[in-house]
Amino acid sequence: MKTTYRSIFKWGDKREEKLEKGVVELVKEQFQYTDADFDKRVLYGDREIVLDQKPKIPAAIRQQFEDISGSENVRWDDYSRASHAFGKFYGDLLYLRKGEIATPPDLVVFPRSENEVEQILALCQQKNIAITPTGALSSVTRGAETPRGGISLDLTKHLNKILKVNRVNSTVRVEPGVYGPALEKYLNEHGYTCGHFPQSFEYSTVGGWVAARGAGQASTGYGKIEELVLALRVVTPAGIIETKDFPATAEAWDLNKIFIGSEGTLGVITGITLKIRKYRPENTAFASFVFKDFASATLAMRQIMQAGTGFPHLFRLSDPVETATAFKIKGFDGSFSDRFLKIKGYRPGARCLMFVSVEGDKDYIHLLKKKIKRMARKQGGFYSGSHPVKEWLKQRYESAYLRDPLMDIGIMTDTVETSVTWDNLLNLWTNVRRYLESREKTHVMAHISHVYENGANLYFTFLSPMKPDEEVEDYLQYHRGLIDSIHANGGSLSHHHGNGRALAPWMEKEMGKTAMGLLQATKDYLDPKGIMNPGNTLGLR
Amino acid sequence: MKTTYRSIFKWGDKREEKLEKGVVELVKEQFQYTDADFDKRVLYGDREIVLDQKPKIPAAIRQQFEDISGSENVRWDDYSRASHAFGKFYGDLLYLRKGEIATPPDLVVFPRSENEVEQILALCQQKNIAITPTGALSSVTRGAETPRGGISLDLTKHLNKILKVNRVNSTVRVEPGVYGPALEKYLNEHGYTCGHFPQSFEYSTVGGWVAARGAGQASTGYGKIEELVLALRVVTPAGIIETKDFPATAEAWDLNKIFIGSEGTLGVITGITLKIRKYRPENTAFASFVFKDFASATLAMRQIMQAGTGFPHLFRLSDPVETATAFKIKGFDGSFSDRFLKIKGYRPGARCLMFVSVEGDKDYIHLLKKKIKRMARKQGGFYSGSHPVKEWLKQRYESAYLRDPLMDIGIMTDTVETSVTWDNLLNLWTNVRRYLESREKTHVMAHISHVYENGANLYFTFLSPMKPDEEVEDYLQYHRGLIDSIHANGGSLSHHHGNGRALAPWMEKEMGKTAMGLLQATKDYLDPKGIMNPGNTLGLR
Repeated sequence: MKTTYRSIFKWGDKREEKLEKGVVELVKEQFQYTDADFDKRVLYGDREIVLDQKPKIPAAIRQQFEDISGSENVRWDDYSRASHAFGKFYGDLLYLRKGEIATPPDLVVFPRSENEVEQILALCQQKNIAITPTGALSSVTRGAETPRGGISLDLTKHLNKILKVNRVNSTVRVEPGVYGPALEKYLNEHGYTCGHFPQSFEYSTVGGWVAARGAGQASTGYGKIEELVLALRVVTPAGIIETKDFPATAEAWDLNKIFIGSEGTLGVITGITLKIRKYRPENTAFASFVFKDFASATLAMRQIMQAGTGFPHLFRLSDPVETATAFKIKGFDGSFSDRFLKIKGYRPGARCLMFVSVEGDKDYIHLLKKKIKRMARKQGGFYSGSHPVKEWLKQRYESAYLRDPLMDIGIMTDTVETSVTWDNLLNLWTNVRRYLESREKTHVMAHISHVYENGANLYFTFLSPMKPDEEVEDYLQYHRGLIDSIHANGGSLSHHHGNGRALAPWMEKEMGKTAMGLLQATKDYLDPKGIMNPGNTLGLR
Repeated sequence: MKTTYRSIFKWGDKREEKLEKGVVELVKEQFQYTDADFDKRVLYGDREIVLDQKPKIPAAIRQQFEDISGSENVRWDDYSRASHAFGKFYGDLLYLRKGEIATPPDLVVFPRSENEVEQILALCQQKNIAITPTGALSSVTRGAETPRGGISLDLTKHLNKILKVNRVNSTVRVEPGVYGPALEKYLNEHGYTCGHFPQSFEYSTVGGWVAARGAGQASTGYGKIEELVLALRVVTPAGIIETKDFPATAEAWDLNKIFIGSEGTLGVITGITLKIRKYRPENTAFASFVFKDFASATLAMRQIMQAGTGFPHLFRLSDPVETATAFKIKGFDGSFSDRFLKIKGYRPGARCLMFVSVEGDKDYIHLLKKKIKRMARKQGGFYSGSHPVKEWLKQRYESAYLRDPLMDIGIMTDTVETSVTWDNLLNLWTNVRRYLESREKTHVMAHISHVYENGANLYFTFLSPMKPDEEVEDYLQYHRGLIDSIHANGGSLSHHHGNGRALAPWMEKEMGKTAMGLLQATKDYLDPKGIMNPGNTLGLR
């Protein structure tokens, strides 16, 4: 089992092997599926992995990598190479299912120390071998591929230590390969939280968060990863760059910010100092609201963010279709509460569900929740208690594992996100939705998460039947149109997924020629031979 | 009068021509000055400005600049050149007083539009003429000098417009040359505040704030300028770079952050979008406290910042000497309150004064003030009401004009600031103080301002008699020792003054060779001929 293509899906995680009842019903209704359709095994990927390409790195050089990191930490078996060939971009999942891995890495190396990273980079530099640093390989934007083969440098096996909690400074120092849950567990035990909970939390690493400039579900309160990083240490082909954990400086421009979002193209992050906050789950307050429509709900959201009362931590608003979908799946439709809401004018297809959590000092969260309730009500928000948020939090990471069982039955599903100013949010939402819905039989949901004083992140999810035998090209074409639509409507290419190779073709249009030249010049200095995660990541050469 | 060296001091401002009574008494006591000493006119600078160097730019090329910006916007008279030769670095003030201006600009040009900036840069590039963009010339780190002569590009005359307040997004778009008071007045009239109040507020511009990576007195709540900037437009010799006003993105790394702190070395900032906040002075709450010593006061400060209740906006703590000095100058010594405090164990020479302001929603600030009081009291803080803060705010910018009248009577005075983590703050404070006090007859004050969860900014002020006939070298030597001491004790070179040429010699030691190479590579791409603010600004070539 461990050697099928299928074994790579969901990082081998067993959750959501079967679709839950609500999802089954949604699929039946939306796509006119019969019970028999759920036995489909579309592109099932249950063949043994067999790579056509043998590793291109000669045995003598391979031996040099083994000399550096030990033979047990250098792998070139088909499974290791295949499992490091892709992140979790939807298109890549199709390739995996089809058993088409065009450019796997030649070697997977698991360095045991920063010093080994330096030696490996030096060797790669000398031999002109490409090298892609990887964490948990959850990139959904093709950020961790190896188009030139070479080395996949897996930092999760050894460089995963939590080095020091500094209680006075309220910081933690970690190595890049530590997974979210391990870090959070450790911090919780010490009375702290990292506050960074991306959808990929269970299969992502701190190094990946930093490299891809991610955001967690509570980022409205805690900030994106760029607000959490105080200091970095990065091994680049040009040498080591280390920043210090000053709370703020005016020492020229901020070098941390060059590596946050660099997606492995500039070097290997080996040390990270993050802000941490007191862990006080007993103080967390939750609230949910139903609004009559998306416009009034977004207005409430904006007013809450601009009120000068502090920000909620989790702040999320589902659009009408996503709200209806959640209500359906959770069995809310037709309930007493549903009937009550309908009578009160909160109509299905228009009403929107908002989730809030507030963390921190007890009295503060009490006040903030009260203020939020008042502001929400002013825009017609109906307070629906804390229960829905708590329920949602219990399964907050589950939907990441839903894609594969849906693909098994021939349903394409993907998510794309963008950042937009308040004054453009409804416009972008309307137009991008319209684009997505222009595809036949497509179920489109959207929500706002990661909210700011000046705008928000809009997150689109779609489900649509795959086009048999043209799964890849069909998806890529739809995805291209989607990004075109976002770009044309003034959204950013990404708010927290990163850009990778998936969005690279839009980069110059988005950033301008001079800005792209600046990114490239940065890379050319740090990585003069272009060995770091090469092949158009971020639109770089 | 307008043509003496002296007319350049304090931007011609007439405040603090005479020292106030409290300061006079301090000077008498500290430096054993007699009444007669106050009639001194040390390096008085009241000679007419006469520059030895005639402009090096030939008339034919000068004509080209006149063709671009109009003859009324190109100046080469001695006053214009002299007044654009320096910022407000203490050493430069000495040179001005001595009438020694080694490298004035050849021309001062006041561009009327971004397009003119582009043309001027192209011409400078073609003719290899150095160009230093300037705002209000208040740099205290030699950020705006013209060591190669060339052009001083003054953006305050025309490129000073407030372009648009966007109420939905809560942003304002401005040109770089707008002064602090003009912007704040405009915003207040529209119901907003910029929230950025540096000591130099009255003579500084938004472009300068961004270029020098500044911080305002309320930065603990509003954030440093890097937290306020959403979008920039920059004309560089390599072309225009423009970022968008997304509330956040993951489009590669953050290019805004490369220009914030670039100090004119990369290009000319021509457009800035800033966050703005509701202006509600009626909601602002003030509090002051006296603590028994610096250690307990800094502990309270840290606990307040890490409490999860939100942050104060203004947050300031004077060390024992600064507290004693303020008490003396304000006539507090010997008052009933003073005697009361002494009885309660708040002894002069140990006690410390803390100022707080909180802005925002009314109920929120009420709660936060209550919380702050509670946390302050827990560390022995004695609540001394809101009055002292209000009084301080009234004269918050005055001390910037105090330097020149002190210099008139032979007193050297300067301020240096650094960023430090909480766990190193008392250590750095002790050791840097010790260094500063190692100079005879020197009055050293320090305060914490700009406070963070993870550390704070420490700000040192010293007064000491000048060394007659060796004023410059004496100061530079003392200053070198001071920066050495800060660096050796783990403080940053700067928290918000910028680095300029004054701190450039420490840059490589502080940042490391590879990082300095990265800064230089950035410059080399954007400014291949090295015409932008050249001559070792930030330690760049």
